[in-house]
Amino acid sequence: MLDAASELMVERDTVDVSVADIAARAGLNTQLIRYYFGSKEGLLLELLKRVATRALGELNSLVVAPTPPVRKIELHIGGIVKTYFRFPYTTRLLRALVQGESSRYAAEVSKFFVAPLVAAQRALLEQCAEAGLIRHVDPMFFYFSVVGACDFLFASRYALRDVFHIDAIDDELRRAYASHVVALVMEGMRSREKAALPLRD
Amino acid sequence: MLDAASELMVERDTVDVSVADIAARAGLNTQLIRYYFGSKEGLLLELLKRVATRALGELNSLVVAPTPPVRKIELHIGGIVKTYFRFPYTTRLLRALVQGESSRYAAEVSKFFVAPLVAAQRALLEQCAEAGLIRHVDPMFFYFSVVGACDFLFASRYALRDVFHIDAIDDELRRAYASHVVALVMEGMRSREKAALPLRD
Repeated sequence: MLDAASELMVERDTVDVSVADIAARAGLNTQLIRYYFGSKEGLLLELLKRVATRALGELNSLVVAPTPPVRKIELHIGGIVKTYFRFPYTTRLLRALVQGESSRYAAEVSKFFVAPLVAAQRALLEQCAEAGLIRHVDPMFFYFSVVGACDFLFASRYALRDVFHIDAIDDELRRAYASHVVALVMEGMRSREKAALPLRD
Repeated sequence: MLDAASELMVERDTVDVSVADIAARAGLNTQLIRYYFGSKEGLLLELLKRVATRALGELNSLVVAPTPPVRKIELHIGGIVKTYFRFPYTTRLLRALVQGESSRYAAEVSKFFVAPLVAAQRALLEQCAEAGLIRHVDPMFFYFSVVGACDFLFASRYALRDVFHIDAIDDELRRAYASHVVALVMEGMRSREKAALPLRD
């Protein structure tokens, strides 16, 4: 059922997929979906959990790997972009579950996805800072800026299409964008001087 | 009417504000709102246009100002964060207008907001690159990564609350976050060496 939901969301480029359509694709009846997941939101939550489990599994392996610490952060940023690339509905799934009427799922999303992600990022930043490879960077700021930069490409496909005339994010664009974010973030953190004039305003 | 809608969205922290409530706040009847804006989406579109006009006006003044070019980009990044701070519903307004059933407004949003923003960013990047102050950065990548980093703090207030225990974005957080993004982006672009190992995967 999760595979059927996932396929339909990719094909139709929306998370607005009906339980009836998911049931039809999975060759099951809608009652069964309601039985397993309680509601469509329940199914969306399970789908996001699957994305999170996979992404966090890879990330936590990276935290303890014998890889040089700067390289770990580079690979992690590549991994975030790859997660959005593989599961392009992730950004909409997240928003569907934390906003408006579904915001009752927000605390759960924070717990199974955001908190462990931030904890792993904090560990990666500490490994780099302890080795003297980067300046101190607030893990909270790291989370919002790095995940935000990766998310926005996938969240703004209308702009990609209308302004840049790119209909789909292919593997080449995915790699080039990941390299761009890696370059900004790693060079931006590596700097040891006072980085910029404080903003006056 | 736009002021009333704006106030309600800030107070309730959602763009799901009914036409009836907006009418009540403005002291007008709902028919008048429908007459002026056609629909609630029409009103949301006008509200976004107002945010865009203001932000783009400031940005275009910056493009032609006699300010040093690197400082212009720093001020621009501070300006993006300030726009989201002043109009915290901007991120939701954008998404409400480009996704799902309202996606018929996407092309219009691209035209009045994203395209002029990208054109101004391109001009700022060229001014810096011509002065030899930054390496070449693709304006498309600049747009998605920089606006994405700024947007995500405001789009993910659930994570701010649940994971970082911050209930509201105050002026101090707004400034600190802008400085963080400025430092990452400016140091990340200033670098003239090959920034990072290419991602293998």
